[in-house]
Amino acid sequence: MTTTVHAFGAREAGAPFEPVTVERRDVGPHDVKLDIEFCGICHSDIHFADGDFGPLPISPLVPGHEIVGVVTEVGDAVRKHRVGDRVGIGCMVNSCRECENCLQGEEQYCLKGHTLVFGNIDRDRSVTQGGYSEMIVANEDFVVRVPDVLDPASAAPLLCAGITVYAPLKRWGAGPGKRVAVVGLGGLGHMGVKMAKAMGADVTVLSRSESKRQDALDLGADAYYASGDTATFQTLANTFDIVLNTVSAPIDINAHLGLLRLRGTLANVGVSTEPMPLNAFALMNNERTIAGSQFAGIRETQEMLDFCAEHDVTAQVEVVAGDQINDAVARVLSSDVRYRFVIDASTLAESTPAH
Amino acid sequence: MTTTVHAFGAREAGAPFEPVTVERRDVGPHDVKLDIEFCGICHSDIHFADGDFGPLPISPLVPGHEIVGVVTEVGDAVRKHRVGDRVGIGCMVNSCRECENCLQGEEQYCLKGHTLVFGNIDRDRSVTQGGYSEMIVANEDFVVRVPDVLDPASAAPLLCAGITVYAPLKRWGAGPGKRVAVVGLGGLGHMGVKMAKAMGADVTVLSRSESKRQDALDLGADAYYASGDTATFQTLANTFDIVLNTVSAPIDINAHLGLLRLRGTLANVGVSTEPMPLNAFALMNNERTIAGSQFAGIRETQEMLDFCAEHDVTAQVEVVAGDQINDAVARVLSSDVRYRFVIDASTLAESTPAH
Repeated sequence: MTTTVHAFGAREAGAPFEPVTVERRDVGPHDVKLDIEFCGICHSDIHFADGDFGPLPISPLVPGHEIVGVVTEVGDAVRKHRVGDRVGIGCMVNSCRECENCLQGEEQYCLKGHTLVFGNIDRDRSVTQGGYSEMIVANEDFVVRVPDVLDPASAAPLLCAGITVYAPLKRWGAGPGKRVAVVGLGGLGHMGVKMAKAMGADVTVLSRSESKRQDALDLGADAYYASGDTATFQTLANTFDIVLNTVSAPIDINAHLGLLRLRGTLANVGVSTEPMPLNAFALMNNERTIAGSQFAGIRETQEMLDFCAEHDVTAQVEVVAGDQINDAVARVLSSDVRYRFVIDASTLAESTPAH
Repeated sequence: MTTTVHAFGAREAGAPFEPVTVERRDVGPHDVKLDIEFCGICHSDIHFADGDFGPLPISPLVPGHEIVGVVTEVGDAVRKHRVGDRVGIGCMVNSCRECENCLQGEEQYCLKGHTLVFGNIDRDRSVTQGGYSEMIVANEDFVVRVPDVLDPASAAPLLCAGITVYAPLKRWGAGPGKRVAVVGLGGLGHMGVKMAKAMGADVTVLSRSESKRQDALDLGADAYYASGDTATFQTLANTFDIVLNTVSAPIDINAHLGLLRLRGTLANVGVSTEPMPLNAFALMNNERTIAGSQFAGIRETQEMLDFCAEHDVTAQVEVVAGDQINDAVARVLSSDVRYRFVIDASTLAESTPAH
């Protein structure tokens, strides 16, 4: 048995999103069913649906990996969540649970490959479908608690954008007395500013032009520099403990390394497919480090949500209905979003043909 | 007043080394004078003398930055060394002592630039001359103690090759339960094997071909793989905590990153001038890190020498006389050295014309 639910999806690579339906499995012993309230629109949803990461594994493909909802049913063996709880699902819904990384709670680096919340083949051979939908069923171990003090729409982007910046900021020691530069002020970057400030760091935003100065300061940044101005790299040489690069387009990696003081780290979360021409001398001087990072394990994702509840950190969002998704996508592609679109899942049924 | 001493140097960029003399300053209040016993021949000496790093700053240029000798005179204010002590001088002989890096004892990253032991303009405006000579005068703060249990010829390469690998191995946690891959088995690489073993790590050597297998095992390596065999990168995927790259020629940086397990570090000490085409995904997976490193500060250099005394670690050397330097250089350039040539400074006078 399955349940048919309203959703928005792409029928082929690059096609507009349209009303579709997806089947959700019955609730198994370890499963949680949630009515989705909100789901963020992340640029990587669009990449997937456009076929940038390969052919669509299923048609229609329903993206969405920043999901917040309320539990409506739990399996007999479920211990972590109860009916009525507000919960979240992020990038992944399964992993092997046996490899050395899973055993350390770092399921995002599962050596057999984690199962993405959409577009991946799950352990039961079904293809996963994401959060641009009314309802989802998932294993309790990959569902996190969303503290009640957080606004559910504004909390949704924490499940990807939030954790993607939280994890490297924490790993590399953002906190009082530390100077953090956030490169790029988009969905990830604006979360980077808020997270680093909440951790107690001194935060500088670097963005191409002067256009986002006021926004950066409003978000809490202590300083702002235009990276398009080459003097910036002289002024700020040897200054930061952490440079958090959130820009997906190629940046001058060596110039940005030059901003790091002794043993500073360039944490790279804005992934470009073009290779970075890394200069060994830029890395050697000041014993600098460049580090990758990819969201986080479930334990750390929960820790991040609790941190956000304690420090009143959420995303700045614009809530859209199902029939506004394609407009929102166009605006994401033209960088006309401050700073995250979130779909109100209660609107999906209205936009969807009866079945 | 100065003292004229025998030395070997290059009169112009790329010229063979020949007997020359250099002037040494009188011993100032904070200076130490030492009779040089041994000085290692490092590939970067040759790069400097060949003009690879720019025109020669002085003629003749006397290289040499792996110096061991015995103190023969100390200035009135000297407190760290006494006449008769065996001491060493490595890559640098001065720094600003005021910047945030110097104040942390990391003079190698002096923000105003450290003074190299040869070919640099010192704070007194003189051009420094290195260890291919009989005697040197240097500020006591940049002179380290060489424990008596260490053979002085074999200890000389610790001052550059040794500290260059010790510092990143220590920083990134080489020790019991950790797996270290040493890439390249030359002057740096053979020290990497010995240091990592002494720290208690499990050590694997990766070298192009099978030719150095027995040598690697003799040096103490636990395993050996040919990096020219592409199967190696599959067999060893996600295996190491530290990959220490000691190869100066370009390597496939992304393939080597793939060898790292969760949060592993590729410590890059073999510096190529060609940019490394770094793939963001290779870095993101397993949250990997690539880090630069450049010898170490004086405090850590002393710590390294004491560690080597405790663990009986020295370089494997071939001692040469002054009139063998050019032959040794040719053999370094053809990688025909296992693993470091060291000049016996007592032979320099014989090879040098009277003056």
